[in-house]
Amino acid sequence: MRITLPVKNLKEITDLLNTVVTEVKLQVSPDGISVKAVDPAHVAMISLELPKQSFTEFSVEGEDEMAVDVERLKSVLKVAKDQDDISVSKENGKLSFEIGTINKKINLLDNSSVTTPKIPHISSDSFVVLMKTDAERGLKAAEDVSDAIRFTLSADDFSARSFSDTEESEMRLPKDMLKEISCKGTVKSLYPLEYLLRFMRSLASAEEIKISFKDDYPMIIDFKFGRQGDMTGSFLLAPRMEQ
Amino acid sequence: MRITLPVKNLKEITDLLNTVVTEVKLQVSPDGISVKAVDPAHVAMISLELPKQSFTEFSVEGEDEMAVDVERLKSVLKVAKDQDDISVSKENGKLSFEIGTINKKINLLDNSSVTTPKIPHISSDSFVVLMKTDAERGLKAAEDVSDAIRFTLSADDFSARSFSDTEESEMRLPKDMLKEISCKGTVKSLYPLEYLLRFMRSLASAEEIKISFKDDYPMIIDFKFGRQGDMTGSFLLAPRMEQ
Amino acid sequence: MRITLPVKNLKEITDLLNTVVTEVKLQVSPDGISVKAVDPAHVAMISLELPKQSFTEFSVEGEDEMAVDVERLKSVLKVAKDQDDISVSKENGKLSFEIGTINKKINLLDNSSVTTPKIPHISSDSFVVLMKTDAERGLKAAEDVSDAIRFTLSADDFSARSFSDTEESEMRLPKDMLKEISCKGTVKSLYPLEYLLRFMRSLASAEEIKISFKDDYPMIIDFKFGRQGDMTGSFLLAPRMEQ
Repeated sequence: MRITLPVKNLKEITDLLNTVVTEVKLQVSPDGISVKAVDPAHVAMISLELPKQSFTEFSVEGEDEMAVDVERLKSVLKVAKDQDDISVSKENGKLSFEIGTINKKINLLDNSSVTTPKIPHISSDSFVVLMKTDAERGLKAAEDVSDAIRFTLSADDFSARSFSDTEESEMRLPKDMLKEISCKGTVKSLYPLEYLLRFMRSLASAEEIKISFKDDYPMIIDFKFGRQGDMTGSFLLAPRMEQ
Repeated sequence: MRITLPVKNLKEITDLLNTVVTEVKLQVSPDGISVKAVDPAHVAMISLELPKQSFTEFSVEGEDEMAVDVERLKSVLKVAKDQDDISVSKENGKLSFEIGTINKKINLLDNSSVTTPKIPHISSDSFVVLMKTDAERGLKAAEDVSDAIRFTLSADDFSARSFSDTEESEMRLPKDMLKEISCKGTVKSLYPLEYLLRFMRSLASAEEIKISFKDDYPMIIDFKFGRQGDMTGSFLLAPRMEQ
Repeated sequence: MRITLPVKNLKEITDLLNTVVTEVKLQVSPDGISVKAVDPAHVAMISLELPKQSFTEFSVEGEDEMAVDVERLKSVLKVAKDQDDISVSKENGKLSFEIGTINKKINLLDNSSVTTPKIPHISSDSFVVLMKTDAERGLKAAEDVSDAIRFTLSADDFSARSFSDTEESEMRLPKDMLKEISCKGTVKSLYPLEYLLRFMRSLASAEEIKISFKDDYPMIIDFKFGRQGDMTGSFLLAPRMEQ
């Protein structure tokens, strides 16, 4: 196995996985890599699909599983510059990384020590497609106000609102500031804010995201990322019950 | 009431007030806003005059008082970009802030809980007008040396000097580096350094400042700030007795 | 005595000395300044030669010794901008620094309180000349892996390798990435990593360095620095015994 991709790209994958877990099991096949992870509290899940054409070089024979320590992967990447290419290969139970004149190796984890979660089938007809920067601004504005944020979607607008006894924050995006909107009636649900913020910060290269949800129901954020946007992923987040 | 101004401008006002207090009472009238604040130890005072023409939009009917938590105001502004405009209005005992798609609200404080200080009548014929950057450099150089700085003004130069047992720092600005100088004989006085540094850091947009003082007497710093320099303010600082 | 040099230059000298000590004794003569320092654990030594022509202004009559607190010198420089010139003179047991309108003074230390170490005579026929940035990259890559790094030099390449139970990092520079290489057979030795990293970070203006070492023997790094590279120095580092 030997794959090559821009450092920037591998950093984004690592950050996204690190939003929910510290250890992951990658499913490697000749067609690409896929990975699923759920946080210990079962509040947030992430799944990524990285098809072979999204890599600069992708040479894999047969199916394989590789359990990796995400923190250690971050430490390997710390020394690399965003614009460099990084090549990854598997050697004697280790992952080997080549970045220019530097070669770093980390031990793979025991495959049996990391379980791959089942991603539940979640779906909703109510969704909104919007610029990632717009969504992020609304979440950041709520950061000091509360640890939860309420999303509300109607046929005409999307809003995100947080409040405390002394303060409140609301972002309202009318239809003309949205890429796409689909909603009959009005749906609303409360979500934990910190997970959302960490996820947004990790998603460095995505331009737009699709948020699907309904009343008191998990939210799914679908996104494209990577060099040509040919890597895809979903982020699932359980609702928080309204007080 | 609805007023609009650049975020950068409101940040500067907030930082200036925060130099001395954490709660202030704004005096709002159809002609503008004025505010006075004194620190708990009665060492430093600040007063600001913000005439209606210094705002992008200023629509106020009648006189009003608004007591505001300065720290909370800073938190509202954290999410805003310097170049954005921010609109402020009063709604049901709250202050409401509009920054693009974001709306933030904070509770007003009880007017009776914040007292407006009387600014004592301080005046001196000895003063110097100088570039703010020049003054700031001299204060910063003294920062690690002592917690007090001695200002000396003669007909020909202005100097600021701090010393400890092992170190000393002096800035000397001759007449030709000053915008204006007025002094018969020589005056000198010692002032607490930390207040001065905090005030200087807060005064982001002022180009020049006027420092008036005399022997062992409070110092007054007069300054213009804001978009077109049409906001004005005074900073008063009690002297520290020479050991 | 009065000498002038760019602030940036004096900062680099101060940082280099601070890599190993907090107090130094400068040997001043009409021809220039030299200084030697050894760290308390006798693991690392540094010696610098600063000839008079490497200064913007150098006016010294007779030989002199000046014991200086390095931390205090750093504090003086904190307020200065890299591109400024700084003039240093000796006045009544103090060092006086002029930076534009600012004058700072620090007490000199008692000459008898700081000893000048003897630098042992170390030499090796095996050496490599390489770009400082290349060397630094290899050291940084090893930073999270171990507290020691093994240098290996052959006739054809130079490598630096660190490892732990779970991770390893190696930089390999083939002959064509080196400025110069001289080695019969193969030599290798282990060195403490932190000292090397601190030294590299301090050496801001050097483009290339010469590393000489042999099996389990001290390493010498020779370097040129300063405005026109006319300041020179050597850094000596004791080997760490292989486990």
